[in-house]
Amino acid sequence: MSSIQESTSKVIARTKTDWNIPASIVSRRTINPIRDVVFKMKVTPNPEKEEISLALGDPTLYGNLNVAENCIDAVITQLKSHKANGYLPAVGAESARIALAKKFSTKEAPLTPRDIVVASGASDALGLAIGALCNEGQNILLPRPGFSLYQTISESKGIECRYYNLLPDRNWEIDLDHLASLIDDNTACLLINNPSNPCGSNFTRQHLECILTLCEIYKLPVISDEIYEDMVFGDNIFYPLANLSETVPILKISGLAKRYLVPGWRVGWIFIHDRNNLLNEIRDGLASLSNLILGANSLIQSAIPDIIMNTPQSFYDATNRFLEENAKLSASFLKKISGLHVISPQGAMYMMIGINVGEFKDIKNDVEFSEKLVQEESVLCLPGKSFHYPNYVRIVITAPVEKLKEAYQRINEFCVRHHV
Amino acid sequence: MSSIQESTSKVIARTKTDWNIPASIVSRRTINPIRDVVFKMKVTPNPEKEEISLALGDPTLYGNLNVAENCIDAVITQLKSHKANGYLPAVGAESARIALAKKFSTKEAPLTPRDIVVASGASDALGLAIGALCNEGQNILLPRPGFSLYQTISESKGIECRYYNLLPDRNWEIDLDHLASLIDDNTACLLINNPSNPCGSNFTRQHLECILTLCEIYKLPVISDEIYEDMVFGDNIFYPLANLSETVPILKISGLAKRYLVPGWRVGWIFIHDRNNLLNEIRDGLASLSNLILGANSLIQSAIPDIIMNTPQSFYDATNRFLEENAKLSASFLKKISGLHVISPQGAMYMMIGINVGEFKDIKNDVEFSEKLVQEESVLCLPGKSFHYPNYVRIVITAPVEKLKEAYQRINEFCVRHHV
Ligand SMILES: Cc1ncc(COP(=O)(O)O)c(C=O)c1O
Ligand SMILES: Cc1ncc(COP(=O)(O)O)c(C=O)c1O
Repeated sequence: MSSIQESTSKVIARTKTDWNIPASIVSRRTINPIRDVVFKMKVTPNPEKEEISLALGDPTLYGNLNVAENCIDAVITQLKSHKANGYLPAVGAESARIALAKKFSTKEAPLTPRDIVVASGASDALGLAIGALCNEGQNILLPRPGFSLYQTISESKGIECRYYNLLPDRNWEIDLDHLASLIDDNTACLLINNPSNPCGSNFTRQHLECILTLCEIYKLPVISDEIYEDMVFGDNIFYPLANLSETVPILKISGLAKRYLVPGWRVGWIFIHDRNNLLNEIRDGLASLSNLILGANSLIQSAIPDIIMNTPQSFYDATNRFLEENAKLSASFLKKISGLHVISPQGAMYMMIGINVGEFKDIKNDVEFSEKLVQEESVLCLPGKSFHYPNYVRIVITAPVEKLKEAYQRINEFCVRHHV
Repeated sequence: MSSIQESTSKVIARTKTDWNIPASIVSRRTINPIRDVVFKMKVTPNPEKEEISLALGDPTLYGNLNVAENCIDAVITQLKSHKANGYLPAVGAESARIALAKKFSTKEAPLTPRDIVVASGASDALGLAIGALCNEGQNILLPRPGFSLYQTISESKGIECRYYNLLPDRNWEIDLDHLASLIDDNTACLLINNPSNPCGSNFTRQHLECILTLCEIYKLPVISDEIYEDMVFGDNIFYPLANLSETVPILKISGLAKRYLVPGWRVGWIFIHDRNNLLNEIRDGLASLSNLILGANSLIQSAIPDIIMNTPQSFYDATNRFLEENAKLSASFLKKISGLHVISPQGAMYMMIGINVGEFKDIKNDVEFSEKLVQEESVLCLPGKSFHYPNYVRIVITAPVEKLKEAYQRINEFCVRHHV
């Protein structure tokens, strides 16, 4: 103790005499708009009616969509090997990166293991990509409506979010004029999300080429969030953005969460598509940033070769078929309800529904629509406000058919009741 | 395409005409000193001698230390349940937080589930804690020698690192006078690490109380990294810091990595010890920041109750006994080598060895010692420079006894050869 007594008797440059421990500026500006909007909806479901949630982007919620058995076996094999419990390279297991490169390399957009960074979910991958490309004070171009984590990450880092409009009546294509008008010398990159959460849209090849032309003109690197890749319906074809350009530098984001129905496993990745060596510094930046948390769980990373190479095509097909049928059913049910504006989804697992507020006598916006729908019908969906898109609501179409039908029945009664 | 043509004919606030994509400032200041020091050591092992690495803090490296079977079974149970693949709350699974609170709550430092945040490894937990407590431009007090991730995280966030000295000849206790002299009004918190990487030290109760007194005087919240908790040898007793104070707010960091021998599983946690409600803002800050990557793998989180409640005491005892025997063996071997200064470890899985450079004819510092040791003897250890502590080297004592003996034999020959 003596040394403390001594030291306190010296002149110390601290005048603080009270405990006063404010949260950091960064933590205060790290905002989850979904939580913000939903937590403020202080309503409880109708106790007479069983709750049906169409709010959460988690395909495992109802137990009807399940990971393929071979994926479970692959992880069990790793567990039993006793060889996959140790630290892996911060950028990801070599074996996983080799397998990913092999599986996803194309003639147009070749990949080697060193073009890949494995991360703790697509969320972490997005944080690394945005963190490597953008400085505080710069701006990033984000879709509106769009997945709210883009904002959470960007604002956390002090990056200004500029939202470009998606056009609901053109299958949620980007309003390119509006996008171009947002660009200035402080624009660090463009982020696109295709297929889209929350829109359920899938861009045509032509639209993707227009986006790339614009990036080429304005020298904008792209973060392309393709976590719903290949989850498209009917005649829709999914095009990886990087397949369509030989010049625009692209960080493609994807992962296991959605296609393999394992969001809790927390494995995502970045593909660095950089045919002209424009991203050398960004590669180093991604590697540096990956040291902060050292990536994803070692068991799952070690199982990646097995998971991505040996999951049968029938599994992917079954998921897509299920989503497609639910999408059709949802659109045909909801289109009959007056007061709603329905845009049929082309992919992913979401649907945006416009609320024609003028047609309702006592509902003034999407938040009130969602609140009253919970209170009266115990059906949960997310108000568009959480995606910066008022007067729409987002529903998730992964619930079992019977639940969806029941939910739409209730939405119908609800809309009839509140219609003018 | 027309809309692009149109938009480019308008006046756009971008003058950039060349691809030029610099890495962000944050990524450039995110430096891993271990990688930096080790990568610059451009040496290859002696091809005549089998490589023995004592460099990596990964107890699974040699396959001699293995996770307990019940932990593997616990994860397999979760896999087979098909119920642990979904998103969990960003602050962690309720079941995990309940079990952790139950297991680690003490009379002196009670815990409820809401005092716990589960993170992707202790690394992520440290990032959240430092991120919630410290602003850019503030300073944080870090141990020297100390685990290099503290610096990596802090500098990444623009927080100034101030290093307080540990005293090798007092079992690496903190030089409290020196510590106090670093404190000013810009000091956001004190970080201590006990038991210590790289020192292998374990603080006495009295020393911990002195640290707490100092924190009380200067109103310094503490991040207490106790990832090696209970991994102590002989008569040493480990005291959780929070058990010794009723006033100082403490964020305790720990996780599964070391005690359960599964660093690759990436599960860590923060315990918020805040008896006087001084950390309310920090709680919110931690919750906000946890939204960025959504924490640890769901399978492991769901297995936490089983892992921490049902791992037999014999497992922990066996690990500690093994480490203790290796520590003794290491100290007794190395103490006989002239030119080295050996401090016997009291816990964790490390040992710092002083290099009396004056006694060597052609070795001028720790980096050169490590380099030549690799080149001539194929024995890898980390130069103290990577812990801001020149003229020491760190060795990891988890290798099988025969490997250690062989390594020490070679170190002996090496030192004899280079001694004056
Ligand atoms: C468009 C989009 N990107 C990224 C993510 C995050 O994925 P992960 O769970 O792998 O972090 C989501 C999750 O809903 C998403 O919808
Ligand atoms: C003192 C200390 N804290 C934290 C960590 C990081 O632990 P984790 O692997 O859980 O991120 C380590 C790993 O070596 C460590 O030595």
